[in-house]
Amino acid sequence: MKQLLLIGIGPGDPRQVTYEAVEAMQRATVFFVLDKGAAKNELLQLRKTILARYVPQGDYRLIQVQDPQRDADAPDYAGAVNAWHQQRAALYARLLEQELAPGDIGAFLLWGEPALYDSTLRILDRVHAGGVALALKVIPGISSVQALAARHQVPLNRIGEPLTILPARRLAELESVDNVVVMLDGHCAFAALDDPGLHIYWGAYIGSADEVLISGPLQAVKAHIVQVREQLQQRNGWIMDTYLLRRGV
Amino acid sequence: MKQLLLIGIGPGDPRQVTYEAVEAMQRATVFFVLDKGAAKNELLQLRKTILARYVPQGDYRLIQVQDPQRDADAPDYAGAVNAWHQQRAALYARLLEQELAPGDIGAFLLWGEPALYDSTLRILDRVHAGGVALALKVIPGISSVQALAARHQVPLNRIGEPLTILPARRLAELESVDNVVVMLDGHCAFAALDDPGLHIYWGAYIGSADEVLISGPLQAVKAHIVQVREQLQQRNGWIMDTYLLRRGV
Repeated sequence: MKQLLLIGIGPGDPRQVTYEAVEAMQRATVFFVLDKGAAKNELLQLRKTILARYVPQGDYRLIQVQDPQRDADAPDYAGAVNAWHQQRAALYARLLEQELAPGDIGAFLLWGEPALYDSTLRILDRVHAGGVALALKVIPGISSVQALAARHQVPLNRIGEPLTILPARRLAELESVDNVVVMLDGHCAFAALDDPGLHIYWGAYIGSADEVLISGPLQAVKAHIVQVREQLQQRNGWIMDTYLLRRGV
Repeated sequence: MKQLLLIGIGPGDPRQVTYEAVEAMQRATVFFVLDKGAAKNELLQLRKTILARYVPQGDYRLIQVQDPQRDADAPDYAGAVNAWHQQRAALYARLLEQELAPGDIGAFLLWGEPALYDSTLRILDRVHAGGVALALKVIPGISSVQALAARHQVPLNRIGEPLTILPARRLAELESVDNVVVMLDGHCAFAALDDPGLHIYWGAYIGSADEVLISGPLQAVKAHIVQVREQLQQRNGWIMDTYLLRRGV
């Protein structure tokens, strides 16, 4: 049985980590860090900062691996994700077999909340199905959605109403937008909406020193957000942002 | 300016509190505790446990107030909630005026996540609109939704799909249920669904010593959940539960 901890570490501010997450970090003996793309070095550095703060004794191994890239241009989204997950499952299975000796406790430090738009649980299901016996523990973390709401001081739901959280590629499919949180928007999907009744609460690098917040009537501020986002991405080499769209504020 | 902290303290397990929340608790000089109903004493005791653990020096005042009850049988839901919020806004305004001297920092310890199905932010908006100058800070907390997913080790969303979180009274309105988290269900709304394709992940008192988890095909386990829920409610005098419904597991 491979012991494995999936630790949610929040959106970036080391103070937005729970005591449960820190207890888990202190039990772990091996940390797996799998990143890709432009944010790779910065995200690795942030994890190292969190580990140095909460596990100062440093009695662990840090295994850094290049995560396979998903084919972002594949016409078949689900198929591309499926192939990508299969690749990652094979990689994770190999890592667990090679790096976790009996008595070791492995851990993944996951940004935000492990159950929200993160594929690690799903990939470990495949690893498990492929014959690697796993004893998992999942530790929730503050998601960027919660950090966004806290910084804008705005409730995520309206009274008695549903809250929808969705990836940007599903935004255009909605018949009407009433109250949705949008994640993973690499292409400013909000800018394509011409509905005059919408308000946007937008944030980038929430909880970090680079945090930027913009809110206002969507039609009045959307061009400004697109511009700021472009500048930030150029300056930092990567961007992580999320937003809430709400009708009738 | 009244300084006020809205502190999310998670679903009940004192370890599911963030370092940011603890820093905020340690800054606060006055804690407002407003509870109602059967869970009142237990929830007060849980908060006191959290405070004793994280602010052991005990240099604060704890103001305990009976929260007005909402008229749960009113035919006009939105109207009843509105009247109830107005009553609470008047109460909160009075409390802030009376209990916060210059230099004091007030705090509300809120279960779960302050931005998710919690009315405190909305009520303080009314207090503010009523002429009380407020300097607010909101500190996110782990919601029961996240704790539910972590304990069942299941992602909240499916690949590339939306996640909907809704109060139970909206469940019956859905044309079809694909993937929804249901909160605030006092009447087992899930039991009325006869869709054979649904799976349920249910949990009560998540993160506490009384935690109970049940999952399985909805039609196979729903009667069992109704029965267990009834027994727990009788034994403890109150219940706090939430669940995820998902098609095709």
